[in-house]
Amino acid sequence: MKEVTAQRTAGTLISSPDITPEELQLAVRNHSMPLEALRYDITPLGLHYLLIHFDIPPVSASDFSLTIGGHVSKPLVLSLDDIKARAATTLAVTLECAGNGRARLSPRPMSQPWLGEAVGNAEWTGTPLAPLLEEAGVRSGAVDVVFTGLDRGIQRGVDQWYERSLSLADASRPEVLLAYAINGAPLPPQHGYPLRVIVPGWYGMTHVKWLRSITVTDTAFDGYQQVTAYHYRTVQGEAGEPVTRMNPRALMVPPGVPEFMSRTRFVEKGVHSVQGRAWSGKGSIVKVEFSDDGGKLWSAAALEASASPYSWRRWTFDWDATKDGEYELCARATDDAGNVQPSDTKWNLEGVENNAVQRVAVVVGAPNQQQAPADGD
Amino acid sequence: MKEVTAQRTAGTLISSPDITPEELQLAVRNHSMPLEALRYDITPLGLHYLLIHFDIPPVSASDFSLTIGGHVSKPLVLSLDDIKARAATTLAVTLECAGNGRARLSPRPMSQPWLGEAVGNAEWTGTPLAPLLEEAGVRSGAVDVVFTGLDRGIQRGVDQWYERSLSLADASRPEVLLAYAINGAPLPPQHGYPLRVIVPGWYGMTHVKWLRSITVTDTAFDGYQQVTAYHYRTVQGEAGEPVTRMNPRALMVPPGVPEFMSRTRFVEKGVHSVQGRAWSGKGSIVKVEFSDDGGKLWSAAALEASASPYSWRRWTFDWDATKDGEYELCARATDDAGNVQPSDTKWNLEGVENNAVQRVAVVVGAPNQQQAPADGD
Repeated sequence: MKEVTAQRTAGTLISSPDITPEELQLAVRNHSMPLEALRYDITPLGLHYLLIHFDIPPVSASDFSLTIGGHVSKPLVLSLDDIKARAATTLAVTLECAGNGRARLSPRPMSQPWLGEAVGNAEWTGTPLAPLLEEAGVRSGAVDVVFTGLDRGIQRGVDQWYERSLSLADASRPEVLLAYAINGAPLPPQHGYPLRVIVPGWYGMTHVKWLRSITVTDTAFDGYQQVTAYHYRTVQGEAGEPVTRMNPRALMVPPGVPEFMSRTRFVEKGVHSVQGRAWSGKGSIVKVEFSDDGGKLWSAAALEASASPYSWRRWTFDWDATKDGEYELCARATDDAGNVQPSDTKWNLEGVENNAVQRVAVVVGAPNQQQAPADGD
Repeated sequence: MKEVTAQRTAGTLISSPDITPEELQLAVRNHSMPLEALRYDITPLGLHYLLIHFDIPPVSASDFSLTIGGHVSKPLVLSLDDIKARAATTLAVTLECAGNGRARLSPRPMSQPWLGEAVGNAEWTGTPLAPLLEEAGVRSGAVDVVFTGLDRGIQRGVDQWYERSLSLADASRPEVLLAYAINGAPLPPQHGYPLRVIVPGWYGMTHVKWLRSITVTDTAFDGYQQVTAYHYRTVQGEAGEPVTRMNPRALMVPPGVPEFMSRTRFVEKGVHSVQGRAWSGKGSIVKVEFSDDGGKLWSAAALEASASPYSWRRWTFDWDATKDGEYELCARATDDAGNVQPSDTKWNLEGVENNAVQRVAVVVGAPNQQQAPADGD
């Protein structure tokens, strides 16, 4: 065992006051994806990020039914077996929380304090929604399609079942699925057992878990999670912009080995093949860049094909760590709609849509590589 | 949707200053088990608590081998197939982090800031260790058995592979397993793929993940995680008591529905069947008690049988919430070795072995039950 000096760099992590007990309660319940899990094309079960607003509800598959009603001519009530008997699609989809990166804002909006790793890329299996809407006979004048979960709670004084809507046009897109399996297995409780909606390209709040009803409306849906929450607003009371599709983001697997408490990385001098993933819900990723000087100079990373149009793309960069010292590694993604990750956070009331470039503190040169475990014999 | 007043009770959660950025980094990586998951006898994959000191290492099962060496007459090198070909045992085992409850201490030890839910109860499948030690021919004078993982990092200045040891007597107990499956499936990366040790009854730090070698020693093992970390010490520099088996603890599924940010619970007036689990690594659970007044008056809960001697026991209590108002629900476990959960935390330098009674803030009477989802139609 060697003595090394751990660098304290976490002071640069967040600039507003320390995390409150309320935020901690959310942080120990929910979890992001440890960045080393970026090495997997498909995120193994248990590593995908999770944000559960209220409680995971107890649901029995045998009692479960989904109703499709509202402004339709032929309301449907479907069992889980009915849904599984329909045409099935399997799709790799990257999901990211709209609040990813929130904890880096100052002042920090009070909610789940994500640092930047609230993401995952799973293979979802389900049946497309559009043919079901067609069977139910959406009537003229339909506006929104409301997805209601079996999870209930209180948020900002509003007692509610978790509900989100899509416009009829968005809900009718062919990639929107009612999913009952993840990575080839039935949904586990925390991912929405037995059924959830998957809306590829959109931030996580859209993918309603524990789905129990789909309601077509002839007026705009005004539920809490739709019109109060999930808006980009910089001033209290303004209408703001609704949060929809994911901004581009690239993340890297931090190279080297971590210090337990600071998470500072230590690497050897030499060439390191740095890898990561990049995604966007607003276009295809066309460029990922890498920097080892905190974002002053950028170099193009190599990009690989994605498993689906809605799945992240792997990227690699051979980083030549030539000198001992401290480095700030960064990654930056650009999509074909022209969206580029900004260098800094964009403050807003809810702390949504933040996709500032990732920054990883690395020390080159210490400690020396220790090839074998300490042997107690 | 109804307007209700969310109670701010989290101020009673932790009494020392707010959580630092370093603690937050650990809190968003690792996660406890959401308390509603106490409803499952066997914790579904992805809900079991996780504490990963360094990074999850990349391991290929085909390259993997386990060496059993050191103070033995016939060192062994085993492939994963070799291990799977041996006699297999499946055992339900409750695992809890030794630092569970740490965030409630004041001043708060700097490490993973657990509130009290760092637990899980999985079914582990593996082969008993004792016959392997016998095959390897442990030589006379053997003292400890050291388990070394493939995960490396730096902690308090010490560059190390994660390592823990057991005395030869403890390592030779029949319930100690080398496990390659959880809940009937191969270990996922975060639980130690492809192999870990399971030491039923002991706190989590003992169950070394990503196990690559077992080394019998003829002197006492002095690795960082064995002699520096995981001791109950109240004064810097004292020898202290090593952390070994789990203290008794009971936890309940918080009844009612939560407020998003405070996690305060709201329930209706009337009888509520409260359920939970209780376990101890120091004896069998013989009593669980319930209180609705913060622990002044206690009533006995009903106890069910456990799935194995090392698995938690389910308990239930019919709580009659007769009056509107605020309540503090508590649960308290006693084992047959006479260990009882204390009312308050016991401060120590590392924040280990805390098993103070759980306290759940509940408001009876508001909001009114909302039977149907808001319908946007």
